[in-house]
Amino acid sequence: MLDTLPNATDVRSAALRIEGKAYKTPLLEVPLLNERLGFRLLVKPETLQRTGSFKFRGAYNRISRIPEDQQKGGVVAFSSGNHAQGVAAAAQMLGLPALIVMPSDAPAIKVANTRSYGAEIVFYDRFGEDREAIAEKLVAERKATLVRPFDDPMIIAGQGTVGLEIAQQARALDITLDAVLSPCGGGGLVGGSALALASESPQTEVYAVEPDGFDDTARSMVAGERLSIEPGATSICDALLSPEPGNLTLQINARLLAGGLSVSDDAVTQAMQIAFKYLKLVVEPGGAVALAALLSGQYDGHGKTVGIILSGGNVDQEVYRKALEA
Amino acid sequence: MLDTLPNATDVRSAALRIEGKAYKTPLLEVPLLNERLGFRLLVKPETLQRTGSFKFRGAYNRISRIPEDQQKGGVVAFSSGNHAQGVAAAAQMLGLPALIVMPSDAPAIKVANTRSYGAEIVFYDRFGEDREAIAEKLVAERKATLVRPFDDPMIIAGQGTVGLEIAQQARALDITLDAVLSPCGGGGLVGGSALALASESPQTEVYAVEPDGFDDTARSMVAGERLSIEPGATSICDALLSPEPGNLTLQINARLLAGGLSVSDDAVTQAMQIAFKYLKLVVEPGGAVALAALLSGQYDGHGKTVGIILSGGNVDQEVYRKALEA
Repeated sequence: MLDTLPNATDVRSAALRIEGKAYKTPLLEVPLLNERLGFRLLVKPETLQRTGSFKFRGAYNRISRIPEDQQKGGVVAFSSGNHAQGVAAAAQMLGLPALIVMPSDAPAIKVANTRSYGAEIVFYDRFGEDREAIAEKLVAERKATLVRPFDDPMIIAGQGTVGLEIAQQARALDITLDAVLSPCGGGGLVGGSALALASESPQTEVYAVEPDGFDDTARSMVAGERLSIEPGATSICDALLSPEPGNLTLQINARLLAGGLSVSDDAVTQAMQIAFKYLKLVVEPGGAVALAALLSGQYDGHGKTVGIILSGGNVDQEVYRKALEA
Repeated sequence: MLDTLPNATDVRSAALRIEGKAYKTPLLEVPLLNERLGFRLLVKPETLQRTGSFKFRGAYNRISRIPEDQQKGGVVAFSSGNHAQGVAAAAQMLGLPALIVMPSDAPAIKVANTRSYGAEIVFYDRFGEDREAIAEKLVAERKATLVRPFDDPMIIAGQGTVGLEIAQQARALDITLDAVLSPCGGGGLVGGSALALASESPQTEVYAVEPDGFDDTARSMVAGERLSIEPGATSICDALLSPEPGNLTLQINARLLAGGLSVSDDAVTQAMQIAFKYLKLVVEPGGAVALAALLSGQYDGHGKTVGIILSGGNVDQEVYRKALEA
C-alpha cells in the first residue's frame, strides 16, 4: 500500500476523515495587498491550522488508518518540527503513543510544542546522523508504525485536503484560480493539493516553491529523476530542508505541476513582513515561500487570480523579531 | 434617529447589510492555549477583518444607510486610526468621498492605510485641539455626514455583528459560552455584541475590557453616569483612548454588561506575545486587552468556556518588535 500513488478520491476520503478534527482554515483576501501586488490574491493560512501548520492533516489521516492490532506499538516519526507536532497531536487525539526523532537544532517552539502533545523526543545531529536509520531502528524495537513526513499515500492525501478546500472555497466565492503556489519540502502538500485541484479545478496551474539551494523538486521534475540538493546549502526555511523529493511525491508532481520556483532568504524575509503588515498573520520562513515567489517576481501574477498556501506559523520569537527588523 | 437605542433586530439587519462586504471571521480554538489557561477559550480574530479591525462593520452599516440625496457631500470621521480605515474603506466601496480627522501621533500604518483607501486626511493635536469641533466644522462646510466612532445606533449595530457571529458560530460547534470579553474604547463593539448575545445566547455574560487609566466605561457603569478619564493617563493601547463612554453605548452597557475590567500595559504586551506564540496572529495593543484580562487573572475563567474578541491588528512593525522583546 505504501508504494501506491494516491488519487483525488483518496484526498476526498481524507477530507471526511479529518472533518471536525482539523480546522477548515479560511480563504482570505486583502484588497490593499491585491493593490500592492497588482493582481488578485487568495490566501490559505494553514498557520491557523491545529498545531500551527498543515502537517496535522496528513498525520491524522495516516494514523487514524493504523489497524487496531498495530496501534499498541504507537507511532514513530522523524521531523524538523511541523510534522513532529502534527504526528504528536494526532496520535494524542487518537490515543496512540508517539516518539519523534528531531534534529538537535530544531526551533525551540517546535520542540516544546511537540513535547506538550505528550510525545517522547529523541534528538539527532542533522549533519552527522541518518534520521531515517534511527527511526527505522526505533520502529523495529517498539513494533511501532513509522509515519513518514511525505512519502506515504495517506500523508499525501491528507495534505491534499488543503488544495481541496482551496478549490471548494474559491468556487463558493465564484472565483476561478489561474494558479496555486505551495511551499514544497518533500512535496506532500503541493502534490496532494495538485491531485485535488486537478480534479476539482483543472484550469488551475499548481507550482511548487522551494528555498534557493533546496530546489530538489524543481530540478528533479526537469531531470525526470530524483536529484538531491547540493551539499552545503543553507536556508532560513527550517521546514523545507528535505534533501530530495519523495518517490511518490515526485511521480505526482512531475505529472501534475506546472513548474517549480525557488526564492532567496531575503525574499522570504520580505514575505514575512508583508504577511505581518497586510495579513496580520505570523508566518514562519518556510511558510512564506509562496508569497515570496510572488513578491520577488519569480511568478508573475499580473492579469491572473492566484492562490497561495501559507503552510505554517511556528517561528521562534527572536527569529521573528529579526525578520521584522530588516 | 441618532438618539435611538439600537436593539438586537438592528444587529441582525446590519449582518444582512454587511454580508459579502465584511468578512465572517472564524472562531478559533487552540488546544495548547486552553491547556496553558486551564479553561476553554474561543477566539474571534477581527484582526483578519477587512481593514484589519472590526471597525469596517459599523462603518459600512452606517454609510450604506445615508440617503441618496445626502451622499454627494461624502462622510467625515474623527479617529485614531481603526475607525478611520473602516470609514475610508466602506466609503470607497460605496462610492462616497471620505475625509478623516486623525491625531498627529496616530500609528503610521493606520495613516498610510487610511490614505490608501482614497480618504483625505486632516491632522489635529490630540492634546491641544478638540477633534469633534474640527469634524463638526468640516461637516458643515461640505454638507457631509459625520460618521461617529461609536455613539450612533447604526455603528453600534454594525459592530454588534461580531457578537452575533460569535453566538452563531459557538452554537454551530455545540458550545455554550459562559462569558465573552471584548475590548472597549467608546463601547460600540462591546455594546453591540452584548445586544446580540443577550438575544441569541442569554446565558453568556459580557464584559468590557479597558486599559488601566482608561476605564471610563467600567467606572461610569458603576456610577450610573458618564465619567471621563483622569487627566494624564497613558497607555500603549492607541485604539482605546476615548476620554469617556458614549451616551448610547453607556445606556446599553450599563444595562447588559456583567462588568468592566482593566489591564496594564505589561499584561497587554504579554497577551500580544501569547497571540504570537499560540494563535499565530498579529494583534495590536488595544486588540489584545481581552486576552490580557484572562492571562493576568482579571477574569478567572476556570471551569468556564470563554470567548474573546481580538479587535484589531494594525500595529507598526517597530512597536510589535518591541512587544516581542520583553
